[in-house]
Amino acid sequence: MPYELYYWDGIQGRGEFVRLALEEAGADYVDICRGSASKGQGMPAMLAIMESGAGSDIPFAPPFLKDGDLIIPHVANILMYLGPKLGLAPKGEGERHVLNGLQLTITDLVAEVHDTHHPIATSKYYEDQKDEAKDRAAEFIENRIPKFLGYFERVLQQNPHGPSHIFGNALTYVDLSLFQVYEGLRYAFPRATAHLGRRYPHLTALHATVMKRPNIARYLESDRRIPFNENGIFRHYPELDKDTA
Amino acid sequence: MPYELYYWDGIQGRGEFVRLALEEAGADYVDICRGSASKGQGMPAMLAIMESGAGSDIPFAPPFLKDGDLIIPHVANILMYLGPKLGLAPKGEGERHVLNGLQLTITDLVAEVHDTHHPIATSKYYEDQKDEAKDRAAEFIENRIPKFLGYFERVLQQNPHGPSHIFGNALTYVDLSLFQVYEGLRYAFPRATAHLGRRYPHLTALHATVMKRPNIARYLESDRRIPFNENGIFRHYPELDKDTA
Repeated sequence: MPYELYYWDGIQGRGEFVRLALEEAGADYVDICRGSASKGQGMPAMLAIMESGAGSDIPFAPPFLKDGDLIIPHVANILMYLGPKLGLAPKGEGERHVLNGLQLTITDLVAEVHDTHHPIATSKYYEDQKDEAKDRAAEFIENRIPKFLGYFERVLQQNPHGPSHIFGNALTYVDLSLFQVYEGLRYAFPRATAHLGRRYPHLTALHATVMKRPNIARYLESDRRIPFNENGIFRHYPELDKDTA
Repeated sequence: MPYELYYWDGIQGRGEFVRLALEEAGADYVDICRGSASKGQGMPAMLAIMESGAGSDIPFAPPFLKDGDLIIPHVANILMYLGPKLGLAPKGEGERHVLNGLQLTITDLVAEVHDTHHPIATSKYYEDQKDEAKDRAAEFIENRIPKFLGYFERVLQQNPHGPSHIFGNALTYVDLSLFQVYEGLRYAFPRATAHLGRRYPHLTALHATVMKRPNIARYLESDRRIPFNENGIFRHYPELDKDTA
């Protein structure tokens, strides 16, 4: 039975981190909200699960994964579950938790990216919090991008197996997520990220390597890869971007 | 060998969710930053790990847990690791991921609580972002508290084993974390949470039950429980609080 991914149609958003893992592994999966209602798919299928009274496994928010009867919400949780099954994570318990720790740091970064355009209220339009967004984005560019990317660069550099992967000597789902973060930050903040190659050489090399992997390259060319847009997490609002030293 | 918890001294903060699990289970643990430097503990011991060049397992931020050589960062990750060992989680893989999903929703809530007093920049003082904090706190009170607590109330109500626990028929670490969230929200927003008992009866009952558990009651009375204060996540700034309908 294929994995079922439930996430909003029309954006990469948080769902993209899961899509990249499924695509790299060539896994059999259905992106439910992008399917047609005539097949029992589409948005109504997602809402039916979220509004059901089935028990403790009802998700708070998309994305969530359905594997048979099991419903698993939250990106890092989905990836931790899928990782060993897709050959994108070690199987040892301790190693899985170390990897999950790295992914949860990406989760925090992604939440901060979201808040650069919605610092006050998710329920309100960007236009209604633009001044605050400018302040928050400036802080993000000045302090948070260096802190997060500096951290990942350092972990790559310190990997005893070499800087090609964030963990161990093989590709993991965290490498794929770092590709997506790098891609997203460059889309949202082209000026602020102009220096990435110089300042974060190992991260930049990792991004290039992931992009060239056959399954990822095919996916990026396909219409399954939704282009970045201003409804997702990474949004390009030129007024929030700026040059850095 | 005792578990070692690494977290800032002087606040409950995110570390408290881990402390509650360790205390409930009567686990042998050391709260490293609260120990003395003469024993190789205290803040320098934490910073030594964070600044070391040891590899992929260096945490981005506290809290982290050390179990022998294994270093595990992020609250939900630590609790997922400890849960089965402390008897506070089921051992089945699927169930562990469902429980982790619930805990990650608490993680998101806690991040939003933090941002009510720091909506623009973690690197700046609250006083320098007070106006924005008022707007963000108003949104939090009006929309986010009902969304999160309404969700947990619904999950309790839908638990096929009854509403005494958030998952299954026994206490888990998520029950303990919900106690802490309830406690923290009441501390930070006494006016906005005046209605909790009426609107979220199952959550309120869970909070009362956890508080009376012998190990938790002893812990709350001890000097190991740091009082809430205005350096932690849950801060009481009267100007951010308000009555709700």
